[in-house]
Amino acid sequence: MDHIKKIEHLGIAVKDIDAANKLYEQLLGVPAYKQEEVKSESVITSFFKVGESKIELLASTDEEGPIGKFIAKKGEGIHHIAFDVEDIYKELARLEAEGFQLINKEPKSGADNKLVAFVHPKTTNGVLVELCQDKK
Amino acid sequence: MDHIKKIEHLGIAVKDIDAANKLYEQLLGVPAYKQEEVKSESVITSFFKVGESKIELLASTDEEGPIGKFIAKKGEGIHHIAFDVEDIYKELARLEAEGFQLINKEPKSGADNKLVAFVHPKTTNGVLVELCQDKK
Repeated sequence: MDHIKKIEHLGIAVKDIDAANKLYEQLLGVPAYKQEEVKSESVITSFFKVGESKIELLASTDEEGPIGKFIAKKGEGIHHIAFDVEDIYKELARLEAEGFQLINKEPKSGADNKLVAFVHPKTTNGVLVELCQDKK
Repeated sequence: MDHIKKIEHLGIAVKDIDAANKLYEQLLGVPAYKQEEVKSESVITSFFKVGESKIELLASTDEEGPIGKFIAKKGEGIHHIAFDVEDIYKELARLEAEGFQLINKEPKSGADNKLVAFVHPKTTNGVLVELCQDKK
């Protein structure tokens, strides 16, 4: 029954990636270890290690992209939580059968060499949940 | 430089603790291992283990309490992220010196036998950050 292995990362929407990188380096006491653009999502991401998990900062390269829209509506802040799973296909099928509404019925390519899929916040108490799995 | 050891927990504001317990048990594949009322904060909390971290559901017992007000303003969703630190007094002094605005300059008693203190979201890109340390 080991569906969810750990918190893989926490995604935080920010306006200015350079300013946020500096601030989170001060907060966490470690610098970002990687920066990566995900063109399909119109974001620049940067990653910090915290124990077995990561903090992922997300800045939009396009006001019409998902992070641009999120910030316009809600301001900067926590955008999603991502859980690491062993088998993303099996977990998506399991969650759909349990009544969760999936945003992505099929996994897609995300940052950090992962397969990812999102669960709609409407069925998770307002929390945007991402499942992710390392690409084999 | 090991300021922040891990994500201790992620706090999620919910309206109905029983319904949310059931839903998060389905999502995570494990039941809550503990439920606890924190009268000083007017909340009932329940905890799920996820790897080295926890998910903490927070339901308000009072509309005027911090979680009651949060839900009235923003709806259900992620409320805060808590980082585990070795020495909360030292970390609070360090963060204040770095220019972060502290909500609590002195730690207070929180759920789960912890000393806790919050950093204001205004200096952390809209993220309410909690530091916590096990009581000795």
